[in-house]
Amino acid sequence: MAGTGFFDGVESVRFEGPQSTNPLAYRYYDRDRLVLGKRMEDHLRAAICYWHNFVYEGGDPFGGPTFLRPWSAGDLAAARLKADVAFEMFEILGLPFFTFHDRDIAPEGASLGESNRNVREIADIFARKMETSRVRLLWGTANLFSNRRFMGGAATNPDPDVFAYAAAQVKNAMDVTHHLGGANYVLWGGREGYETLLNTDMKRELAQLGRFLKLVVDYKHKIGYKGTILIEPKPQEPTKHQYDFDVATVFGFLKANGLENEVKVNIEVGHSVLAHHSFEHEISLAAAHGILGSVDANRNDYQSGWDTDQFPNNAPELALALHAILKAGGLVTGGFNFDAKVRRQSFEPVDLIYGHIGGMDTLARALIAAAGMIKDGALDRFVSERYAGWDRDEGAEMLAGNRDFAQIAARVEREGLNPQPRSGRQEYLENVVNRYL
Amino acid sequence: MAGTGFFDGVESVRFEGPQSTNPLAYRYYDRDRLVLGKRMEDHLRAAICYWHNFVYEGGDPFGGPTFLRPWSAGDLAAARLKADVAFEMFEILGLPFFTFHDRDIAPEGASLGESNRNVREIADIFARKMETSRVRLLWGTANLFSNRRFMGGAATNPDPDVFAYAAAQVKNAMDVTHHLGGANYVLWGGREGYETLLNTDMKRELAQLGRFLKLVVDYKHKIGYKGTILIEPKPQEPTKHQYDFDVATVFGFLKANGLENEVKVNIEVGHSVLAHHSFEHEISLAAAHGILGSVDANRNDYQSGWDTDQFPNNAPELALALHAILKAGGLVTGGFNFDAKVRRQSFEPVDLIYGHIGGMDTLARALIAAAGMIKDGALDRFVSERYAGWDRDEGAEMLAGNRDFAQIAARVEREGLNPQPRSGRQEYLENVVNRYL
Amino acid sequence: MAGTGFFDGVESVRFEGPQSTNPLAYRYYDRDRLVLGKRMEDHLRAAICYWHNFVYEGGDPFGGPTFLRPWSAGDLAAARLKADVAFEMFEILGLPFFTFHDRDIAPEGASLGESNRNVREIADIFARKMETSRVRLLWGTANLFSNRRFMGGAATNPDPDVFAYAAAQVKNAMDVTHHLGGANYVLWGGREGYETLLNTDMKRELAQLGRFLKLVVDYKHKIGYKGTILIEPKPQEPTKHQYDFDVATVFGFLKANGLENEVKVNIEVGHSVLAHHSFEHEISLAAAHGILGSVDANRNDYQSGWDTDQFPNNAPELALALHAILKAGGLVTGGFNFDAKVRRQSFEPVDLIYGHIGGMDTLARALIAAAGMIKDGALDRFVSERYAGWDRDEGAEMLAGNRDFAQIAARVEREGLNPQPRSGRQEYLENVVNRYL
Amino acid sequence: MAGTGFFDGVESVRFEGPQSTNPLAYRYYDRDRLVLGKRMEDHLRAAICYWHNFVYEGGDPFGGPTFLRPWSAGDLAAARLKADVAFEMFEILGLPFFTFHDRDIAPEGASLGESNRNVREIADIFARKMETSRVRLLWGTANLFSNRRFMGGAATNPDPDVFAYAAAQVKNAMDVTHHLGGANYVLWGGREGYETLLNTDMKRELAQLGRFLKLVVDYKHKIGYKGTILIEPKPQEPTKHQYDFDVATVFGFLKANGLENEVKVNIEVGHSVLAHHSFEHEISLAAAHGILGSVDANRNDYQSGWDTDQFPNNAPELALALHAILKAGGLVTGGFNFDAKVRRQSFEPVDLIYGHIGGMDTLARALIAAAGMIKDGALDRFVSERYAGWDRDEGAEMLAGNRDFAQIAARVEREGLNPQPRSGRQEYLENVVNRYL
Repeated sequence: MAGTGFFDGVESVRFEGPQSTNPLAYRYYDRDRLVLGKRMEDHLRAAICYWHNFVYEGGDPFGGPTFLRPWSAGDLAAARLKADVAFEMFEILGLPFFTFHDRDIAPEGASLGESNRNVREIADIFARKMETSRVRLLWGTANLFSNRRFMGGAATNPDPDVFAYAAAQVKNAMDVTHHLGGANYVLWGGREGYETLLNTDMKRELAQLGRFLKLVVDYKHKIGYKGTILIEPKPQEPTKHQYDFDVATVFGFLKANGLENEVKVNIEVGHSVLAHHSFEHEISLAAAHGILGSVDANRNDYQSGWDTDQFPNNAPELALALHAILKAGGLVTGGFNFDAKVRRQSFEPVDLIYGHIGGMDTLARALIAAAGMIKDGALDRFVSERYAGWDRDEGAEMLAGNRDFAQIAARVEREGLNPQPRSGRQEYLENVVNRYL
Repeated sequence: MAGTGFFDGVESVRFEGPQSTNPLAYRYYDRDRLVLGKRMEDHLRAAICYWHNFVYEGGDPFGGPTFLRPWSAGDLAAARLKADVAFEMFEILGLPFFTFHDRDIAPEGASLGESNRNVREIADIFARKMETSRVRLLWGTANLFSNRRFMGGAATNPDPDVFAYAAAQVKNAMDVTHHLGGANYVLWGGREGYETLLNTDMKRELAQLGRFLKLVVDYKHKIGYKGTILIEPKPQEPTKHQYDFDVATVFGFLKANGLENEVKVNIEVGHSVLAHHSFEHEISLAAAHGILGSVDANRNDYQSGWDTDQFPNNAPELALALHAILKAGGLVTGGFNFDAKVRRQSFEPVDLIYGHIGGMDTLARALIAAAGMIKDGALDRFVSERYAGWDRDEGAEMLAGNRDFAQIAARVEREGLNPQPRSGRQEYLENVVNRYL
Repeated sequence: MAGTGFFDGVESVRFEGPQSTNPLAYRYYDRDRLVLGKRMEDHLRAAICYWHNFVYEGGDPFGGPTFLRPWSAGDLAAARLKADVAFEMFEILGLPFFTFHDRDIAPEGASLGESNRNVREIADIFARKMETSRVRLLWGTANLFSNRRFMGGAATNPDPDVFAYAAAQVKNAMDVTHHLGGANYVLWGGREGYETLLNTDMKRELAQLGRFLKLVVDYKHKIGYKGTILIEPKPQEPTKHQYDFDVATVFGFLKANGLENEVKVNIEVGHSVLAHHSFEHEISLAAAHGILGSVDANRNDYQSGWDTDQFPNNAPELALALHAILKAGGLVTGGFNFDAKVRRQSFEPVDLIYGHIGGMDTLARALIAAAGMIKDGALDRFVSERYAGWDRDEGAEMLAGNRDFAQIAARVEREGLNPQPRSGRQEYLENVVNRYL
Repeated sequence: MAGTGFFDGVESVRFEGPQSTNPLAYRYYDRDRLVLGKRMEDHLRAAICYWHNFVYEGGDPFGGPTFLRPWSAGDLAAARLKADVAFEMFEILGLPFFTFHDRDIAPEGASLGESNRNVREIADIFARKMETSRVRLLWGTANLFSNRRFMGGAATNPDPDVFAYAAAQVKNAMDVTHHLGGANYVLWGGREGYETLLNTDMKRELAQLGRFLKLVVDYKHKIGYKGTILIEPKPQEPTKHQYDFDVATVFGFLKANGLENEVKVNIEVGHSVLAHHSFEHEISLAAAHGILGSVDANRNDYQSGWDTDQFPNNAPELALALHAILKAGGLVTGGFNFDAKVRRQSFEPVDLIYGHIGGMDTLARALIAAAGMIKDGALDRFVSERYAGWDRDEGAEMLAGNRDFAQIAARVEREGLNPQPRSGRQEYLENVVNRYL
């Protein structure tokens, strides 16, 4: 491939089937294969992120950069090189989407005005590249957490000037996302939380956060942006506590601000784990509340207590989440963004490719398995039958609110009700799931 | 003391002051001492629970009972003996409240009707004893988790007959609580959750749970009960996941059902820890949402992954929670229920007394410390000043919703805003807190 | 099948291949299939445990029994019925081994003598049944944790009489295990730890525990028992801290007592998780130290903080552990004991069968995958090449102890050593593993 | 104070007593106060670390530096400025010790030779400053984790040249520590572990690590260094797994290499928490094994899963650890190094002072409380009596190895032993502890 030479020697990754031992081929991800009548690509809507691939340099809390990328200078020329490499990577992997934070793509300037102009300059490069590329923008977002000014929060900062600054930055990121046809706009509140309650007025901060979200929604409508606004829950890290702790917390926050029909969630596997939920729990809960938006695909090490952002590699684990997504009707404007980074010892460019191939194949296997479960209906049928009593007679009446405690109690006594349990059949169902894997 | 002889040799526990080395005296809990103008007893409203003291027999998942209580037969005679011993314990400790589940106080009968009658029979004994005792009922509740019929949930059971049974049982428990003048009625959903999503319809179950809560509230109003309805959050145990995971989750659930002005939360220290929050976080969040009801006082071992329900013994930890409670105006109908049990090796009756003495003294020290902080205002002043910008000019306008993104962004550019952070002073504030301890 | 009727309607479980949808057939476990030249049965040496199948009654910390087994009376007649059912289950599942605690198989008597006689009586029944059955004993052990007398420890009890009692009980359990040809004898120290350091003399207790283990080893030699003595590590639960925390801790304990050549470890998946290790870590560490003995196969829920003892159902997770076991030469006297229980809602007899079928198929898939990795050597070759420098020249000399700091430092300076890292290739290797799954 | 001006306006911190509200005074740390006959300073031997105070710049995984220190250039001139500021801070706080990594004090050069010379140049500055200062060196150590070359380990690297490089670097750090009269030399293996077992030969790496430690001990003896060699356990972070997981693991490692009399442990509060132990557990275990060396004083946030390195602020928690240290005879060459950093929002120089004041006062309160417990002997007496049976008759005989299983079993039967438990009195003991706090 002509170009930057960054991925020299790496060809476009193609589907070669499960028997392939080519480490640079997909074994399961066959984008045009029909699954439940829809192309695999259209089910998964996979995205490559700028953040982990082009911003992360291999550092950790005890060590510096290890990747030594050619764009480490961090100026606009480096940003242009990054853009070239990014689109080469999109081409190599053949995935349909990408995602970015404003600061991922362009350097911070001496003022917000200059920063915003830098973002727009690179976005214009993206726009031109997208004219000849298949790749589209899954979502854009603003980085309101790396700069020192946000150390005490962005929308939830004690200083209203920081709120204002963040608002102006988000406005620009929304404009750019709109301009590039982004399917969604994401808010992740990395600093919207606290380090210690001793210096924090939680009630005030929640009010500030609600106001900010309303401003985002208002602005979306004002500019005619049709994408979905997404909040990405995370319980902690970098802050001790983040206000968007998990899906249930975000749902309560949306309800409190009357925004539950305007905003959905972007659920990350690793953040679910940090919040002590399974990923499929978060998916299922969001679906139950009607706020399932998009997914950040990765995995967390179960023995580490921080966000490890590794590539997914366990198809059985993801199959249950895919099953929940398919049951909910699939992702609409959302997709699977690989919020995953190669390990700091995986410093060669080709490691980025290996990571995404493994992730895509894992997603594809999980999708195929989940589709099999859906098609056969084995799980759903079991569940429907288990709750069937609620669809008729007194079950339906009680659920509809047509019986009060006195009436119910009278019936229990009259009929001498003494309900007998049925086996939950967990082991049987787990075995059924394994038939598809 | 005449009576059952269970606590033979143990006298009423009195306040003797910090210098006392009498293990059967309070060193800090001086019920009539005025703290911020209110009696200590009226601040803390401490309660002794039936559950841990008279139901728990010392078992754990790998071992059987160790306590060998004289009421282990479990019939109505045993229940009457338990009642006698309980009131002797209330007398010895001199705390103002007690709490119970229906099944704690009376045995399950052959039918729900008989079970309910058993509960009412013992409740009548309570009523007579309360005529001559200072002790009052902080709250009652129904045990919807121990019996086999609830293995798959009570309100959230796949079988509507179990819902009906639970409704009839709760109705009776509410009647009894009302009859005894209980200040609150509590719902803890030990089985309202799931073991595996494979056999669970989460959306249905959440609807069932919402319906049940509405029925509870309706019934409260119907019978003219003036106490507070409380939900007790817990993330898991016994189930893998409980729907009332934490305060934020319960708040969202209340909002979804329009019950946020009808129901408050009963926050347990140990449940906060299991949900990976600090206790003071849960208190502060409930206060911010206006749903702070009552407290289950205990502590959890930080190295154990289950609910250890130990007596509080670390005053500095509790002082921050007390501070948050005082700031919120204190507990109104709520109190501090000792949801704490002696260890299974502490099988002698006097160990129950030691546990409560240590717990009360810890609460008292925490209260005194928190009151000192409130009085001096050192923490509050710091916080007010930190957020002062939000009370004036553009801060106030933005928060009130009088500025949109375009206006804010224009001002940021016009004024060249570049906000500079101020030190969060966490270490200084931690030192200030330690002045009061 | 004639017999107790407990499993009425359940036929012997046979291998039917991956395409089978018969829930009572093995899909992957084909005992005579050769894997790396050895029968699958001989690789896995799977065992059915008495403890979870015939002792656990479905209780949890918040609820009583749900299983309602016909042997709940708990007397010797019940023990005989249990034995009959157990051997019917062994027959149905066709697995080669079983395991038990002394108290699992026979009731506690009025004295230790009577208890021991009860155990021997049932063991004699086992011996007779084993004459006509394929099933053999993987290991026996003594329950030194359920009875109230052990609440403060067995070998580590502050009371030496409890140590003596435990010694006499273990002696009997070893005799019985020897008599039944058990391949191993296991020690799990459920109460060998502490609840609080405040009442604990750790140094003394460690000395007591070391003495006890030496007595076990001495007795083994005295009676000519040829099986392996195994310690089963667990970090906690039931106690706050157990002295056999994990493999590394047990290794240090064995070294301190000079028993590292006499005793090996029985590693449980769920205990590894509770100790914040991966299962393959514990396997690999034990292999590195030469103390890999046997395995307790199960899985732990990653979101629960206690020992959930579920059946394995994720083959990719287990494949890495099987790979480590195969690399270490396989299990010799050890095997895979299903230390797993059906959920308390799975109260029907057939659920026990479903659980074991799913577990066996998961193990079989993991074995097949691991064998594939071994056969191709893809992982091992990568690792060998990565460390190749240590096999030659200065690497070998340094490792052998033939260079001191001064010599090494001089060479570093002389040669201007500035070593350059190579990619760790984690993502590539993870993808390689997935080729086998 | 003349000098760098970094701490302008901050005077020397003096003891003013518990009533002081001066935030820049000690309230409990009174260095000359006699506690159990020894000066408080000599008990605690507190140290200020270079690492957190002068290397940490306020970054976290999601944000850059916030501290903006004047030495950020990172060259030798900056290193000299850092040294000046460091000694000003030692003077202000009046603590008796400091600690450093080689890379903390001097910049990395173009070669190891140059790096080593840089370290020695700054060490010479230290030596001169120490002539007129009270401050001494508690320990030195080498940073074998930040540089990219150590990404795959130092002693445990697959490349023996990295081992050699690390050896040469440690030799220099030991020389410098010896030269400055350091009381200890520390090894923390931040990269001595693995990210994935897929690319790791654990057995080889453990052998390499053992060899390295032997070389360290040999070199110590060769140069006549009289300080103590210390290993600092940590379970993980930065690596997924570190070989020096906890005290028990290190003990096993020392035994395996025959170094248990040559090397002790440096126990960090936060690392204990990460390893799911209490700090007092790690202290007590090290004392039981005779390897208690020194302490890294800090605290970890219980809700965060990573190493938060906060200043201690909860005296009751630390009192139990101090009690264990005093019981073990106190720290000899070791001390309390504040391995603690101010939060990234605490970016002003004075925040460093607040942090240390709070930490010292917490340690002092914990010491005073622990000394009270020791003096009264209340806890120790209880424990001695609890185990008294082991000091006489059959208890002593069994522990000494003078009874075998057959003899013990015969006695149990003969005497009809049926030992009865005594209450463990945990709640009572916790209340006793609280008398001292």
